[in-house]
Amino acid sequence: MEGIMDHLAHERSKAQFSVEEMKVIWAGSLHAFQVSDRIARLVASDPGFRKDNRAVLSRKELFKSALRKAAYVWKRINELALSEEEASWLRFYVDELAYAYVHWGMFVPAIKGSATEEQQQKWLPLANKMQIIGTYAQTELGHGSNVRGLETTATFDPETDEFIIHSPTLTSSKWWPGGLGKVATHAVVYARLITDGQEYGVHGFLVQIRSLDDHFPLPGVTVGDIGMKFGSGAFNSIDNGVVRFDRVRIPRNQMLMKVSRVTRQGKYVESNVPKQLLYGAMVYVRQIIVADASIALSRAVCIATRYSAVRRQFGPPHKDQNGNGVETQVIDYKTQQSRLFPLLASAYAFRFVGEWLKWLYTDLIQKLEANDFSTLPEAHACTAGLKSLTTSAAADGIEECRKLCGGHGYLSSSGLPELYAAFVPACTYEGDNIVLLLQVSRFLMKTISQLQTGKKPIGTTAYMEHVEHLIQCHCKVQKAEDWLNPSVILEAFEARAIRLSVACAENLTKFATPLQGFSELSPDLVEAAVAHCQLIVVSKFIEKLQQNIEGIGVKQQLETLCNIYCFNLIHKHLGDFLSTGSISPKQASLASDQLRSLYSKLRPNVIALVDAFNYTDHFLGSVLGRYDGNVYPKLYEEAWKDPLNDSVVPDGYHEYIQPVLKQQLQNARL
Amino acid sequence: MEGIMDHLAHERSKAQFSVEEMKVIWAGSLHAFQVSDRIARLVASDPGFRKDNRAVLSRKELFKSALRKAAYVWKRINELALSEEEASWLRFYVDELAYAYVHWGMFVPAIKGSATEEQQQKWLPLANKMQIIGTYAQTELGHGSNVRGLETTATFDPETDEFIIHSPTLTSSKWWPGGLGKVATHAVVYARLITDGQEYGVHGFLVQIRSLDDHFPLPGVTVGDIGMKFGSGAFNSIDNGVVRFDRVRIPRNQMLMKVSRVTRQGKYVESNVPKQLLYGAMVYVRQIIVADASIALSRAVCIATRYSAVRRQFGPPHKDQNGNGVETQVIDYKTQQSRLFPLLASAYAFRFVGEWLKWLYTDLIQKLEANDFSTLPEAHACTAGLKSLTTSAAADGIEECRKLCGGHGYLSSSGLPELYAAFVPACTYEGDNIVLLLQVSRFLMKTISQLQTGKKPIGTTAYMEHVEHLIQCHCKVQKAEDWLNPSVILEAFEARAIRLSVACAENLTKFATPLQGFSELSPDLVEAAVAHCQLIVVSKFIEKLQQNIEGIGVKQQLETLCNIYCFNLIHKHLGDFLSTGSISPKQASLASDQLRSLYSKLRPNVIALVDAFNYTDHFLGSVLGRYDGNVYPKLYEEAWKDPLNDSVVPDGYHEYIQPVLKQQLQNARL
Repeated sequence: MEGIMDHLAHERSKAQFSVEEMKVIWAGSLHAFQVSDRIARLVASDPGFRKDNRAVLSRKELFKSALRKAAYVWKRINELALSEEEASWLRFYVDELAYAYVHWGMFVPAIKGSATEEQQQKWLPLANKMQIIGTYAQTELGHGSNVRGLETTATFDPETDEFIIHSPTLTSSKWWPGGLGKVATHAVVYARLITDGQEYGVHGFLVQIRSLDDHFPLPGVTVGDIGMKFGSGAFNSIDNGVVRFDRVRIPRNQMLMKVSRVTRQGKYVESNVPKQLLYGAMVYVRQIIVADASIALSRAVCIATRYSAVRRQFGPPHKDQNGNGVETQVIDYKTQQSRLFPLLASAYAFRFVGEWLKWLYTDLIQKLEANDFSTLPEAHACTAGLKSLTTSAAADGIEECRKLCGGHGYLSSSGLPELYAAFVPACTYEGDNIVLLLQVSRFLMKTISQLQTGKKPIGTTAYMEHVEHLIQCHCKVQKAEDWLNPSVILEAFEARAIRLSVACAENLTKFATPLQGFSELSPDLVEAAVAHCQLIVVSKFIEKLQQNIEGIGVKQQLETLCNIYCFNLIHKHLGDFLSTGSISPKQASLASDQLRSLYSKLRPNVIALVDAFNYTDHFLGSVLGRYDGNVYPKLYEEAWKDPLNDSVVPDGYHEYIQPVLKQQLQNARL
Repeated sequence: MEGIMDHLAHERSKAQFSVEEMKVIWAGSLHAFQVSDRIARLVASDPGFRKDNRAVLSRKELFKSALRKAAYVWKRINELALSEEEASWLRFYVDELAYAYVHWGMFVPAIKGSATEEQQQKWLPLANKMQIIGTYAQTELGHGSNVRGLETTATFDPETDEFIIHSPTLTSSKWWPGGLGKVATHAVVYARLITDGQEYGVHGFLVQIRSLDDHFPLPGVTVGDIGMKFGSGAFNSIDNGVVRFDRVRIPRNQMLMKVSRVTRQGKYVESNVPKQLLYGAMVYVRQIIVADASIALSRAVCIATRYSAVRRQFGPPHKDQNGNGVETQVIDYKTQQSRLFPLLASAYAFRFVGEWLKWLYTDLIQKLEANDFSTLPEAHACTAGLKSLTTSAAADGIEECRKLCGGHGYLSSSGLPELYAAFVPACTYEGDNIVLLLQVSRFLMKTISQLQTGKKPIGTTAYMEHVEHLIQCHCKVQKAEDWLNPSVILEAFEARAIRLSVACAENLTKFATPLQGFSELSPDLVEAAVAHCQLIVVSKFIEKLQQNIEGIGVKQQLETLCNIYCFNLIHKHLGDFLSTGSISPKQASLASDQLRSLYSKLRPNVIALVDAFNYTDHFLGSVLGRYDGNVYPKLYEEAWKDPLNDSVVPDGYHEYIQPVLKQQLQNARL
């Protein structure tokens, strides 16, 4: 009977809204829901995509298995003649990091973004058919965030019409590119361009790494894998690599020349394509990462929520629906709710802000292409800040979900350790999260200084126009229900954000130089940036609620989630709100009361709210997060699959255990 | 030249105190320093204890390698005739989880704590010689924290004078015991005692699991490994196990009968040994975990600090000591300092509170043995709270250190991923950290209610006697330097702690029943408990400073660390301090100013302060944390050791890469 029975059916029956309609809201549109749902089922039902054995594979086995899957994905995409949209859903649900991730996510976009039309015509068909496999080689052993500090050189040789790609030092070795270690045939390599005895900064070059005949590295190329990374599974299925170039020659026309080029004579010429377009690429990648953050967090929340409803511990004996005495469901503890429900709310909040960022990117590109660069700095700061905010919160949230599953969350079969290990690098790659917040704060300081010149702040900084009001306004909350007014919440977040920023701006003037001030006050500046970014998430969630949301009870649930997201932030950053006088201690206490009652209001709906993510058991990859809640028999079953259980008496018994027990160690060779 | 040169020599030369004298302070005594130093070097120089290949081993290889090392440890202990103290240092520095960890850390203490003299005489010699290998089987698949809910039964059969150990349900399977899966011959099994048709709660029983002849499980015993856990390496070297008992019979005298026993006739009899002694065992284990927390955190801090001094990125070009232009050392960024230095301070703070807890335990046991149980509840609450506080802070701190190392911190060769994965279960085992804080808060509420009856609070709650003063006092800070007065700091922490507790106590009265109040307010109660526990750490650090501390400049460094620890907590929990009115926003801002200047004061000393931990490169196991700072060449060297680099063209190329590149997938079997 177990396995057929839905242990969470009773929970599902409590929901006060239509989960099917919420699925569409989560997916973004009916079309997106339908396509993703179809592909998710296709992947889940194909044994070729099994991933439940990842944790026990050795590095080599794991890597080979990822190669097999990548090839199988490609085969299926072609056999089924999937559209680009479908193919990208397929790769998403297969959920296994391999070279294709970098090839499609970074190599192809780099060519599209930085190559001339002519170059694209040559290289894109090869890349699109995977007749070449590419990677993106920017980071070096000695340089990450500081791209301008890269040491690799590309020196033009006018005699042969070639660039000489060279790694002058050990620290200039390219380090980290995914797919580089063992697979990629080509790479977009970033190097300092030198021509005519002069240096022109960092540019991209298309460099062949391996022979297309026998896969051996080309002469002058030393390439390999950089070794094991965090976790079992996670990024260990992909060959992040190292490469050193010893004066490797490439034709001049393999410099990516959309924005600037080198002529046959070695002259450096900038094209009339605006450089700002390259920033568009950064905005593109980072808005994708925000979407990833909501997905990663929602997976963890789904697992922890379902398991918390299954797990029982302590408590006054309850009667279950069959009248049997049982312990309290862990999810009914307020300590569990106060940790878990804000994460559920965050998953939804990040989903909606990600959706909005997608729109922002499209809007930005249209403007850039029309030579309107006015919104770029704001869009850039906003995307950088949200990338930082959402990835940090999602990474911490996944670990929190793991801890909320108690000891069993520590098992690989819970799916949570791997989810964490696979997601957490997002806090570091594509801009270290602290470095990004400092960029945001610089933009905020600039915006504030321009207020005095009468320049009107735009987009997500528009609220700063009301600086005078926001600096002196008083929160109007007098009783707990007053907090349910979105404009009250918004004003509190705006007041906190601008007061922190203005305080920084004032303190900066106390230092001898702006440089010194920025350096000394950087921790405060980071906090001001966080406050600004949280305000963006809050305001986009509120805007979402003001849209026409259809579906039975759906809007009410989203309102509850939005309020939980806000009040939890107020509680967590109470020091900010109180020290800036944005709210009073009494008002804070009323927000806490409100938060507590919202938890009770949300409680009957939480299982349905995680069902709305529409994740298959295959995609979740978690015994604890199973849709049917049949946790214990499956945990037990899973255990026996470990290779250590292949034999009753373990390998090593005769050499290393028996001699201890029999006190025969003196003669043993160990 | 590289490898001989000390890249951190310049940093070391800046220290304003004697690192050799600080080493003794850290170790606790000259004797402890000397013994641990000698054994650390012995382990580091013995190739039999190498651990740099752990991450690349498959589960089976890793497990076998741990078996080999455990046997080798035992061999060396006997060959070198090490004392118990030396042997325990040896196991510590070998730093590889195996069955011996549970055998010595839990099985032997369980026998000592719960067996009668007669039983100890029979079993301890066997265990001490490792002629039997034991584990500690308490947790079940369905029950962790709630020990009273355990389902395994031990039913006395008067006909045969035996207990029948039985697992009546799937969820009653014992689950998690280390060493159980593949190694242990015996286990202390906790089960509900049933005799004469009546149940007497959970008791411990000594059950043989495997044959001493051929290592096969005994009849009725189903035993195996529970599978992979978080990380590569970490707990995967040990066989956490599952066992089910199908009416396994053991002699009556294998019930652990120190506190209560069953007679030949099946009568349950309590002995005159006080039950409270069993709580002493909990205090023992938890104070050890606090010590572990300071060690784990200090390892991570040592790695991150050294690497932050080596790593350079961005910044106005500086001149190094040889006059070459270089980028800014990452450790000179205030954002890095504000994240890293409080963790360094925490490592020292936890070390000292751990030292004090060790004393507390000794003191407690003496009292218990003299039938004085008066201090037990306070000691129990204090140890539970500190276990929770320090393990949560250490786990988060290790991850923060990993992130502070940027991308390279994600590599296994940084040592940080495994350090995290190996330490983080301490947040869950031996009492889930949130459950423990709730216990502390219950104790605090009880203490407060007893204040009215005139009962004098003792030990770490002594400050509560001054409740009236602390509720209405005002922090006296007027300028930043006023914060450097320890009594000012102490009063602020006491005021915050007691005001949070009193607020909870008052709010509890508003609910219909205490049970309902505790349930609804549990998140607030957890915060009150955290405030109380942080106060303990602060006050023990201040007490340490009031002791006679010898050594050039040592005391000044500890004062700086103590202040950093305190001001960082004030900043982090500012909401508490402000909402309770314990300090004003202006005073908070002065504390932040003070904190910033303390970072600058600490900066020249940080490398020496982590050197004082006296960790060998072997023990640290981190390329980034090398003593000589020779990071990049070693990272590069380490990469090539990955099994993926065994061959230039990877296994799988012909099956899975070439067919993609050559577009021959249609016919391939994948």
